[in-house]
Amino acid sequence: MDFELSPLLNPESVAIIGVSKNPSRIGGRLFKYLAKHGYEGSLALVNPKYKELNGVKCYPAISDVPAPIDCALIAVPEKRVLAVLNECAGSHVKAAVIFSSGFAEMGSSGKEAQNKIQELARRKNLRVCGPNCIGLINFNNHIALSFSQLLEIDTLIPGNIGFISQSGALGGSLVNRAMDKRIGLSYFISSGNEADLEVSDYIKHLVLHDQKTKVIAAVIEGFKDGAKFIEAAELALKYRKPLIVLKIGETAAGKKAAASHTGSMTGSDSVIDAVFHQKGVMRVRNYDELFQTASVFSKERIPKGNRVGILTSTGGGGIIMADYYTKLGLEVPEPSSKTKDLATKEIATFGKVANPFDLTGQIFSDPEMFKRCMKLFVAEDNFDIIQVNVSMVAGQSSEQRASMLLDAIEGSSKPIVTWWAAGSLSEPGIKLLNGSEVALFRSPERCATAVKSMVQYYQFLETHQDSTQVGSEVDCANALSHAKDILDAADKSLSEHHSKGLLNAYGIPVTRERVANSPSEAIRFAEEIGFPLVLKIDSPDILHKSEANAIRLGVRSKEEISKVYGEIIENARQYNPDARINGVLVQEMIEGGSEVMIGMSQDPQFGPTIAFGLGGIFVEVLKDISLRVTPLSQSDAEQMVKEIKGYPILQGVRGKRRADIEAVVDVLQRISRLAQDWKDTISEIDINPLIVFDEGHGVKAADALVVLKKPAKA
Amino acid sequence: MDFELSPLLNPESVAIIGVSKNPSRIGGRLFKYLAKHGYEGSLALVNPKYKELNGVKCYPAISDVPAPIDCALIAVPEKRVLAVLNECAGSHVKAAVIFSSGFAEMGSSGKEAQNKIQELARRKNLRVCGPNCIGLINFNNHIALSFSQLLEIDTLIPGNIGFISQSGALGGSLVNRAMDKRIGLSYFISSGNEADLEVSDYIKHLVLHDQKTKVIAAVIEGFKDGAKFIEAAELALKYRKPLIVLKIGETAAGKKAAASHTGSMTGSDSVIDAVFHQKGVMRVRNYDELFQTASVFSKERIPKGNRVGILTSTGGGGIIMADYYTKLGLEVPEPSSKTKDLATKEIATFGKVANPFDLTGQIFSDPEMFKRCMKLFVAEDNFDIIQVNVSMVAGQSSEQRASMLLDAIEGSSKPIVTWWAAGSLSEPGIKLLNGSEVALFRSPERCATAVKSMVQYYQFLETHQDSTQVGSEVDCANALSHAKDILDAADKSLSEHHSKGLLNAYGIPVTRERVANSPSEAIRFAEEIGFPLVLKIDSPDILHKSEANAIRLGVRSKEEISKVYGEIIENARQYNPDARINGVLVQEMIEGGSEVMIGMSQDPQFGPTIAFGLGGIFVEVLKDISLRVTPLSQSDAEQMVKEIKGYPILQGVRGKRRADIEAVVDVLQRISRLAQDWKDTISEIDINPLIVFDEGHGVKAADALVVLKKPAKA
Repeated sequence: MDFELSPLLNPESVAIIGVSKNPSRIGGRLFKYLAKHGYEGSLALVNPKYKELNGVKCYPAISDVPAPIDCALIAVPEKRVLAVLNECAGSHVKAAVIFSSGFAEMGSSGKEAQNKIQELARRKNLRVCGPNCIGLINFNNHIALSFSQLLEIDTLIPGNIGFISQSGALGGSLVNRAMDKRIGLSYFISSGNEADLEVSDYIKHLVLHDQKTKVIAAVIEGFKDGAKFIEAAELALKYRKPLIVLKIGETAAGKKAAASHTGSMTGSDSVIDAVFHQKGVMRVRNYDELFQTASVFSKERIPKGNRVGILTSTGGGGIIMADYYTKLGLEVPEPSSKTKDLATKEIATFGKVANPFDLTGQIFSDPEMFKRCMKLFVAEDNFDIIQVNVSMVAGQSSEQRASMLLDAIEGSSKPIVTWWAAGSLSEPGIKLLNGSEVALFRSPERCATAVKSMVQYYQFLETHQDSTQVGSEVDCANALSHAKDILDAADKSLSEHHSKGLLNAYGIPVTRERVANSPSEAIRFAEEIGFPLVLKIDSPDILHKSEANAIRLGVRSKEEISKVYGEIIENARQYNPDARINGVLVQEMIEGGSEVMIGMSQDPQFGPTIAFGLGGIFVEVLKDISLRVTPLSQSDAEQMVKEIKGYPILQGVRGKRRADIEAVVDVLQRISRLAQDWKDTISEIDINPLIVFDEGHGVKAADALVVLKKPAKA
Repeated sequence: MDFELSPLLNPESVAIIGVSKNPSRIGGRLFKYLAKHGYEGSLALVNPKYKELNGVKCYPAISDVPAPIDCALIAVPEKRVLAVLNECAGSHVKAAVIFSSGFAEMGSSGKEAQNKIQELARRKNLRVCGPNCIGLINFNNHIALSFSQLLEIDTLIPGNIGFISQSGALGGSLVNRAMDKRIGLSYFISSGNEADLEVSDYIKHLVLHDQKTKVIAAVIEGFKDGAKFIEAAELALKYRKPLIVLKIGETAAGKKAAASHTGSMTGSDSVIDAVFHQKGVMRVRNYDELFQTASVFSKERIPKGNRVGILTSTGGGGIIMADYYTKLGLEVPEPSSKTKDLATKEIATFGKVANPFDLTGQIFSDPEMFKRCMKLFVAEDNFDIIQVNVSMVAGQSSEQRASMLLDAIEGSSKPIVTWWAAGSLSEPGIKLLNGSEVALFRSPERCATAVKSMVQYYQFLETHQDSTQVGSEVDCANALSHAKDILDAADKSLSEHHSKGLLNAYGIPVTRERVANSPSEAIRFAEEIGFPLVLKIDSPDILHKSEANAIRLGVRSKEEISKVYGEIIENARQYNPDARINGVLVQEMIEGGSEVMIGMSQDPQFGPTIAFGLGGIFVEVLKDISLRVTPLSQSDAEQMVKEIKGYPILQGVRGKRRADIEAVVDVLQRISRLAQDWKDTISEIDINPLIVFDEGHGVKAADALVVLKKPAKA
């Protein structure tokens, strides 16, 4: 569903329902702030108590307003909200902001009332922001539809960052800070409880329909609809509008608080990480990082690579920045010999030209040297990004430094970032840089992290494959019908043999094996397959074969088969007398290779999720797992394998050869396809272990389990 | 060596040598700032060019100054520094600050000049700060001995934080920011190149001799003398003065920059981490965190535990703080039912009393509710620390909020921390909290991290054992003479058998083994020890026995011994024809147990350093190692074992029993003792693997190598 949000975000006519002459009440503040910030459209006031307010006519009800209204601001007690909204719909109002609280955040009765708002909004095609929100601001057109004390601010600075926050108070606070730093916004939207419109709707609108928005920032507590968020993120990628998110509610304690704060679900944080990773969404971990990162992107200076040149007036500061960039995986290369020669002339005997390049105390005797050296750095081909450190300069000196910096970068399109270390004594210089072409930071860490995000984002854009294209490279032509046969025959879960049959239908190699129904059949199969063998029970009702003592490894002779066959059946029966037993699985025993595990589970918000890790302690003790949601592109699958900490083991260590990583990547994509095809049927898949042989020798699933979502048949 | 630093840090008389009437020169600025900030002691100016400056008499040379001088400020060109310092010494000046640059930071010739300063300082007992520094400030006595533009500031705010920085520019910038937040200091000392006095000297002085300093903060690029720093850190612990350090130069790129910036060595960062960890030094990772962390301690409110109560006016902010505290391992418990009942009356139907406790928008209609709820939280026994979040309040409302907060905490000694989310609109409230009893933060992450440091520090104080007490609990009575025999007989490195002999002298269990000189001797030893066995070459010249193919595992019969004995000798000879061969080591083969490794190496700054990790891939691929410097206390050794990621494996996973962790802790302490006893002789020890049996069954070194620092004998 695509919503046209212009009547809400850029209304030509606004009504305040529940307006008040008391500026400390919501209805009063809305009126005050709308006027204060220069709203130029038409305005209707609604409140039966007044005839007029400040010379503006006041109507008893929205139905009495003669002119058409794009957006109604609803500031009435919770109990009256639905009736008022109904009236709005009847009066052809196109959108509404509901400020009132007392809905889903209050528990089940509130949730019910909120559902009614949603139902009405959808039925009447009336777009609703809120309830329990602080409203929204359109900065470029001076439209302030909010009661936040943020609007006590003198001027709203327009810009190209669209900002959406589920939390009103945090959102307002962040906007206040952005304005302090002259970071301009296109919109601030407080989405509140999201009865109708949710964060993803606003993102889609800003991507598709708002030319002025170039960067999107969001504070998100939870997603209503995971698929819609993925769709919005894909769109943002397609239109190259960076999406930066502060996702809160990571831990159990945080989630408990989140649940009582909004009606949103807060999904498993590691799955959210996976989605962000996969869809190029930049996740900031800190409140104060959101706009700092957004502001780097808002300069629209795109780095050509990851090489940072650091110009510093403090040696210690140079060390700090070089440390951060190196730790974050960026490069801090030497300048070219040409630059070195020219810069050496500048600094004479006072230092050494390198990267970081320390201008030393010499900069105080010869302030212009800064500008000349800066020009050399900006022109240097070895640098894609220029980092400037400024330390203790007071008053006019600070202004001079800032002004030289701005002069020196003229004509260049490289990203220029500055860490300004000093405090209020540098105010004149800092003021000059705020809102300029230079991204200014007060924290060196935030600076480096933002640069890293920017570099990573543009690298990501180059390699990203649209998920709508994904899946076609996996050849699974006959999989569907074969899989259907297997799944139709099962309920709850599949036996190991059937699980492997399903995997095999999707082209995933499995162990050679057959299910025997007698010792003599087992011996016949053994001769077919060859010793050594593994014998184990095959039953959809016995998932833990070791626990049941119904598995024997390293069976090496016919005599042994005769002996263990009966034991396995016997132990399985004792373990679970009601288990349906298909027979004894006679399976090749694999020697050598590395063990990995591949799993699939269903995330309540984002659907089928694939997990990958090395076997045993790596998964169980070290939790060394990578995650992605389906569908997996080839590069997703490759990333999954590479990002686990144990990856060097697959690359070959301690005399072992490189494992067949390509075959693992192939299995991951096939599992993704399988999970997508049967996402309503299969709830879990576990291949543990998948044996990975040396490069070129493929993989084999040695054990597998498929659990169904619900009984496939009665 | 203990230095008395009062003449430097609190001089009654100061001379400016190289004073200038030009306020843009160092000598001019020193004069200007000293007067501006109200220096009340006696002042002598020295410069042959002037008779007087601003009414203060000016002498041709320091030797012409009639009155005694505590501290000389030396602002003359680098070439004249030594002569001037010599003159100072001749005139009984007690201390000097050398601002001039051009010393060790410039390379070897500068280093030589700097060494002469040190030599003179030590010989004449004249304490020197610098060279290449920006000086120092005594805030409580209004003594500004610096030319930093920081001193353009109107007022220097006195306080209880002593601050030392090797980097002058970063130090000055940080002080400017501290002053902006009304964080008061006792001292700011820029230590520069540290020809004479180094960071550790200043720390020791502030710990021992300065009553007003309660907290010490430092920016450190490198340590001149590791042992002295450890001693200073131990003193700080003893006197309960928290020591907070921003250590820069972590990566290779950072270190390269550090080397060219000061004359300091920058040691291995992981060893520095280990030292800090071990000595209760709080390491902040971010520039802007140093004073934020220091300021929490400066309030001198000591938390009784780790339970945080969160009072918030923004739901989202409550989630953020609960997330941080939970991730950092602090507790966010529920309030007592008494508090719940009382608070529920306050908020009526608008919310739910929990932790975090969200006061919701209700706080705007009833601002006083904040104060009443805050009082309930402060009085709540379930909370050791109170966290308050403030979001978007503008102007007078912000002032009112801050003032209610201050009222509510009166009479309580609990730490109170506040995250204030909004920006400049909240200026009046923020101003009120700056410099108050409440520690104020603008970043929620920095807030939680600082609280975590505080909690951890006071927990550390409770368990810390002074390292001067360490070692006595290890019984190694006869170790010394036995060890001496082994070490005297060796050069370069010890053979495996001799290495184990040394370990065994210190009470570390090793495999049963004997060195045989013929196959028949080997068979005799085999009968003594019992099969299965390992046979390997024993030679101080063959360290990699597998590479030499001179090791055989799982030898199970006399016949096998006869066969492999010759092969081992033969392969060893081929591998290294010059190797001295002691014979073939006949060793019990250990089956079962977990493999760990314990190593010792010499850090150039901090001396013997002990490493611990699980064997194989855990060390090689995952770099899962813990480090400590010697001597190890029992709690150090316990921490080392617990802090590796693979620790759960020793605790018992996947059906394995808990390993004998106590025995590992014992070996760590014995290795520490061994390394201490022979720190001038032994350069490396490697026990790899040490086999750890099930709890109660001890450990055994299965292979060991001891490398000597230099030939023990010619």
